[in-house]
Amino acid sequence: MAKTDQNRYRLVCFIVSVALNVFLIANLCISRKPLSWSTTAAAEAEAVASISCSGHGRAFLDGLIENGKPVCECNACYGGPDCSQLLPNCVADADSGDPLFLEPFWLKNSGRSTVVIPGWHRMSYDYSDNSYISQELEKNIRKLHAITKNAVTDGRYIVFGAGSTQLLNAAVYALSMNMSSPAKVVAEKPFYPVYKEQTEFFKAKLFEFHGDASLLRNGTSNTIENVIEFVASPNNPDGNLKKAVLEGPSVKTIHDYAYYWPHYTAIPAPADEDLMIFTMSKLTGHAGSRFGWAIVKDKDVYENMLKYKSLADSGTSKDTQLRALKLIKVVLEDGGQGIFNFAYKTMRGRWTKLNHVLSLSKRFKLQEIPPSFCKYSQTVRGASPAFAWLKCAKEEDSNCHKVLHHEANILGREGGSFNAEDRYVRLSLVKSADDFNLLLDRLKELVSMEEQNQTLRSS
Amino acid sequence: MAKTDQNRYRLVCFIVSVALNVFLIANLCISRKPLSWSTTAAAEAEAVASISCSGHGRAFLDGLIENGKPVCECNACYGGPDCSQLLPNCVADADSGDPLFLEPFWLKNSGRSTVVIPGWHRMSYDYSDNSYISQELEKNIRKLHAITKNAVTDGRYIVFGAGSTQLLNAAVYALSMNMSSPAKVVAEKPFYPVYKEQTEFFKAKLFEFHGDASLLRNGTSNTIENVIEFVASPNNPDGNLKKAVLEGPSVKTIHDYAYYWPHYTAIPAPADEDLMIFTMSKLTGHAGSRFGWAIVKDKDVYENMLKYKSLADSGTSKDTQLRALKLIKVVLEDGGQGIFNFAYKTMRGRWTKLNHVLSLSKRFKLQEIPPSFCKYSQTVRGASPAFAWLKCAKEEDSNCHKVLHHEANILGREGGSFNAEDRYVRLSLVKSADDFNLLLDRLKELVSMEEQNQTLRSS
Repeated sequence: MAKTDQNRYRLVCFIVSVALNVFLIANLCISRKPLSWSTTAAAEAEAVASISCSGHGRAFLDGLIENGKPVCECNACYGGPDCSQLLPNCVADADSGDPLFLEPFWLKNSGRSTVVIPGWHRMSYDYSDNSYISQELEKNIRKLHAITKNAVTDGRYIVFGAGSTQLLNAAVYALSMNMSSPAKVVAEKPFYPVYKEQTEFFKAKLFEFHGDASLLRNGTSNTIENVIEFVASPNNPDGNLKKAVLEGPSVKTIHDYAYYWPHYTAIPAPADEDLMIFTMSKLTGHAGSRFGWAIVKDKDVYENMLKYKSLADSGTSKDTQLRALKLIKVVLEDGGQGIFNFAYKTMRGRWTKLNHVLSLSKRFKLQEIPPSFCKYSQTVRGASPAFAWLKCAKEEDSNCHKVLHHEANILGREGGSFNAEDRYVRLSLVKSADDFNLLLDRLKELVSMEEQNQTLRSS
Repeated sequence: MAKTDQNRYRLVCFIVSVALNVFLIANLCISRKPLSWSTTAAAEAEAVASISCSGHGRAFLDGLIENGKPVCECNACYGGPDCSQLLPNCVADADSGDPLFLEPFWLKNSGRSTVVIPGWHRMSYDYSDNSYISQELEKNIRKLHAITKNAVTDGRYIVFGAGSTQLLNAAVYALSMNMSSPAKVVAEKPFYPVYKEQTEFFKAKLFEFHGDASLLRNGTSNTIENVIEFVASPNNPDGNLKKAVLEGPSVKTIHDYAYYWPHYTAIPAPADEDLMIFTMSKLTGHAGSRFGWAIVKDKDVYENMLKYKSLADSGTSKDTQLRALKLIKVVLEDGGQGIFNFAYKTMRGRWTKLNHVLSLSKRFKLQEIPPSFCKYSQTVRGASPAFAWLKCAKEEDSNCHKVLHHEANILGREGGSFNAEDRYVRLSLVKSADDFNLLLDRLKELVSMEEQNQTLRSS
């Protein structure tokens, strides 16, 4: 190489190096918009999130610590340090309504759905308007119902609670406080067991549980006084859209709309009832956060519920309200499309698979829910219920829960819990994919045994 | 410069530049351990935290939005977009026990006390042991009592609740469920109003409020049956350490230890009672988070409380439990020194100033709390109560609350609320520095008016 070429080459290298330095320093100064106090916590959260649990479990920030880091918490029927081992003979647990089918949606949307809470966040009992209720959250909840078209909120009051569990009881108190004698609390069977358990547990002078609503309807009009009827729609356990059984001037109704979302049902029209209860557990799947709300027409009832809330626990956790706000904002960002499409597809897929498997059986019958027009999606939609309400059709199978448990190692919830016959059993379809897949496999085996027996008998 | 020198100089420049390249690239790759999904939320939280509210307010992530960002929420008596305006004739509100005096501690410790919660965090109803209670948090609460030396936890059960508010009621239910007839719920006056309000509001068949515990003590032994006594120690309102008034085989006691922390009292010995209730509100100041715990000796009572919790709200928010874990870990990091020293100094300082101002008055008397040996600090400590329990000494000032309100624009809580004479009024000392300073200024004016009047009268 000639001397000048060499020099030129050196110069180019030098210029490139200096340019690279300028670029790197600029990058350092500009693009690294410095995060300060949040960095440690963010790094800690990301480190825990990156722990691999083989897709069958998850490590959490507040999990048990081993060797200085949180351990994997495995889905049911998986074990080992990284949850990679399928446990043999494990029961297919379809008992609870734990809505983990929504977890993959939030895993995919981690960035948009994270909240960062500094130590000094909202230490006071109250928000700045001296209430226990975040105005921003309330505003976003009203938007949510507007886009989902599942409830009227204009001119209505909103109360927050620790999930619908608390609001159901708050509503019973609030309604019975205005009654002239102890309220008779009823629900048409089959009904969600908590209505009875809760009303009985709190043994208040103001109300008592009175069983099946239909029995009152058939009685004289005298008995339909000071009545509070629970109406779940879609109904838990069977997924049917329901109306109140009782009516009259001294009948009050609590509408439990936990499942009135496009995930689980077509939305025929915005609900417009006096007292409507919704919960985040079944909307976003955040059952652990304990957040729900009631939409209330009557001012007195609203104020009674606020009083209940104030004496029960001095308001709903501000941490939870902040998280609920973030999650609902994510739902709203694309008009609900992201989560509602994901949730409907998942639930519809599960229901279709389950129907396919059980269509081959003469022994087990699923409830029927006809396709219906959905105001939210503007289409006719096939059923996608949260629960299967399975009937054992054979005379001798009078306890369907036992049949599933003994013959297929499946755990459902007995019909009797819902004030119905034990010939029915409820199977949860809202749990994790691992749970659902195991349930489906067990049911397949059970049905194929039924076919083999039939073949044997007919041969 | 000689040619060789020039070449050497160029070479050095080139080497320096390349070395800088290597350093910057290494820095980029190593030190910037890339944060990914948490970055947006962290940046958002830091941006809100950096909004200036003149030291008399704060902007929050879930605050009302104006021009695309949350607005300043001003402390009482401050206003304007950045809270810099002192509002004239504003009432000095010393009513509530909102523990904002601890906010500066958490502002100083933002880095250590932040939590980052991804969207998929703890969506399930349960922890992996199928309970509603984080084992890690429970473990850390036991450690906390061990270092603070304020309660025995060995061999005891722990239940979580939405603040002590909920646990007080859960305890009344749990204890009365095992009684042969409705429980008489009592407390020695002056007592915290919620004991009465809550017991009466829930109108259960299992219990009723029966007023002042001392009245039962003076009765026959027959009447001391199926009794539940609330004992707050230090007492709210007067800050005195208390023991139960009643005893006997059919008397149960609920010890409310909300204020049994080195902030508010010397700790003479670890409490070792059957049912003890603590709350984060008064320990770390996070009243808005609604987190408390009960330490329970008896297994039946513990199980009744779990049942209560399950039917009341299906467990305490997992978001709140995660935050409580983080905050308590910060407390534990230095054996409690950081927060306990800060809190004691603040409360002691306020008490001293208040005593100084009121020592000049013949009209108003503060309660007396003698210095006492504190097991936690291993020193004799002067009083540092959460509330002033002020007595109007003059015959004609029979309603001390009104006197303060009309003559000094101070809002306290009437003695009558605590089942005591209205000659007493409770003044909260745990609120923000702004609140306390205004209260002190108003009291100073009031006392100086008293002095002027005396001078006038005697001249």
